[in-house]
Amino acid sequence: MISTVSSFALVQDGLAAVERALADTAQPDHPLLGPMLSMVLPGSGKRLRPALAFLTGHLGTYDADKLLHMATGVELLHGASLVHDDVVDESDLRRGAQTLFTRVGNALAVLVGDYLFAQSARRCVATGDIRVIDLFAQTLASMCQGQIEEASRGNAPEQTLTREQYYQTIWGKTASLFVLACEGSAILARLPEPTILAMRCYGDRLGLAFQVVDDILDFIGTEAELGKPVGGDVRQGTITLPVICLRDLMAPDRFRAAFAEDDRSAVVELVRTSGAIELAQAEADRLLAEARDALMTAPASQARDALESLTHYVVERRV
Amino acid sequence: MISTVSSFALVQDGLAAVERALADTAQPDHPLLGPMLSMVLPGSGKRLRPALAFLTGHLGTYDADKLLHMATGVELLHGASLVHDDVVDESDLRRGAQTLFTRVGNALAVLVGDYLFAQSARRCVATGDIRVIDLFAQTLASMCQGQIEEASRGNAPEQTLTREQYYQTIWGKTASLFVLACEGSAILARLPEPTILAMRCYGDRLGLAFQVVDDILDFIGTEAELGKPVGGDVRQGTITLPVICLRDLMAPDRFRAAFAEDDRSAVVELVRTSGAIELAQAEADRLLAEARDALMTAPASQARDALESLTHYVVERRV
Repeated sequence: MISTVSSFALVQDGLAAVERALADTAQPDHPLLGPMLSMVLPGSGKRLRPALAFLTGHLGTYDADKLLHMATGVELLHGASLVHDDVVDESDLRRGAQTLFTRVGNALAVLVGDYLFAQSARRCVATGDIRVIDLFAQTLASMCQGQIEEASRGNAPEQTLTREQYYQTIWGKTASLFVLACEGSAILARLPEPTILAMRCYGDRLGLAFQVVDDILDFIGTEAELGKPVGGDVRQGTITLPVICLRDLMAPDRFRAAFAEDDRSAVVELVRTSGAIELAQAEADRLLAEARDALMTAPASQARDALESLTHYVVERRV
Repeated sequence: MISTVSSFALVQDGLAAVERALADTAQPDHPLLGPMLSMVLPGSGKRLRPALAFLTGHLGTYDADKLLHMATGVELLHGASLVHDDVVDESDLRRGAQTLFTRVGNALAVLVGDYLFAQSARRCVATGDIRVIDLFAQTLASMCQGQIEEASRGNAPEQTLTREQYYQTIWGKTASLFVLACEGSAILARLPEPTILAMRCYGDRLGLAFQVVDDILDFIGTEAELGKPVGGDVRQGTITLPVICLRDLMAPDRFRAAFAEDDRSAVVELVRTSGAIELAQAEADRLLAEARDALMTAPASQARDALESLTHYVVERRV
């Protein structure tokens, strides 16, 4: 197994090209767009999705330009969705910095998000592959539907949200983009159909596990690591897997009582100490084992080793 | 010349198919999406953009399914942009009915707009024509850029907004979609390159004229016709061509004085009585003459007559 550092190192030229493409999309010379786009595009994030796109491409025979369009398109779509997420959630902070929503207001943040959707569409179209473009449009639809379902939860979601609904939501919100990166690049790299399907499965399970771990970190991270208050999700009424696991572990009346207090500190403490975290962690581990199984259908290579190593990174990361 | 009624009648089967496709996209069986989408999709609007797509397609040799995807995709993109416009402008009313923004709030209206962008992308992708899909993505980017520029106007835009900036804004906001309908269908109908360019020009000029007339109607329509208060644009600080024409006609100090009152009633009255409307109307007429000139490069046919007739409809309509 190679280390995570090596996973990213293997595609560092590609990632540097994505960074240049994002800086270019940020239109530094445009008086209106430049300042706003530069708040969200260049230099932020781990570029995990572009790394997935490049590594999957390296499993087959790829055209470097097309793969760069794919990797950039996926990252732009991710950026667009974050901008609109912050509008929808009225979030002040992301990774410890003020959100675009807070800095320029609702109207411009909506429009800048739309603009980023358009730019991500242009990049995906530039791959010239109709199947990849169709996958892009499907992904956009899935992401929106997932967000709409999350934003439309009824009262007391901690009582009613099923595990299945949770996974459906995080599929749309997170895993669908991982699938786009992996399946899209597998198509571009002309991998055989069974391997394309396997890479779709890898992206799906890795994406779900990534979000489960994100939802765990929201409880066990520190405020410095998270860049926002610990337990922020449940304090805002967003129910994630650790709370569902807590519900599985507790008597219904005690679980209900824990939610009686407005600030949810009791819930956060219970999640941290009840064993709920360990249960959620075990679900992430199962998903990652499935991701690795799927990956084994691809031919052995450095890229495959790097993709396997990312399944360990996902669960070990702290931010 | 054939009448406007006949223009729409010539493509009534196609328009009925668009109506069915929109009703289908509205997901009547989905408990969350169905009620929201049904507020914005079926049965609303004149379907002018789909009519343009079909009529342009009829100038050449078209595949009926692809043309239907094109016409539906353009109308969905129009619908998506209206939903986000209302979010950006915080509008209560559209065509006399409550907006989705007012009925479901900011967060869900943003997400439903995104969902409609995704569905319009899926339709455009279903044309299977990479050049058309690329045009779609360009159009989306132009629309957003136009909206961002409009939303970012500085102080006292009535003093500073140039005619060129106004036309740039309405190109992104309105004409770009007309161009997508006409140029996209011209590509799908395998028209020769010079005719594709001519249809792009027709859509461009028709779209600009359509928006100029819209901006005129905002001053000279009745509240019943508009479904919102007369002079709503200038009362909200949006400067359109009639105000620019008024500025051309007046001494600078008198023009500035007219804007001193908060409710802008003096400005509305001046626009209506100063001759500014007639000047703006003359600009629309010039644009429509250019649209007709462009159209004449297409071979004579019923569809061409119908497209010509639409240039008269645009200027004669009251709503």
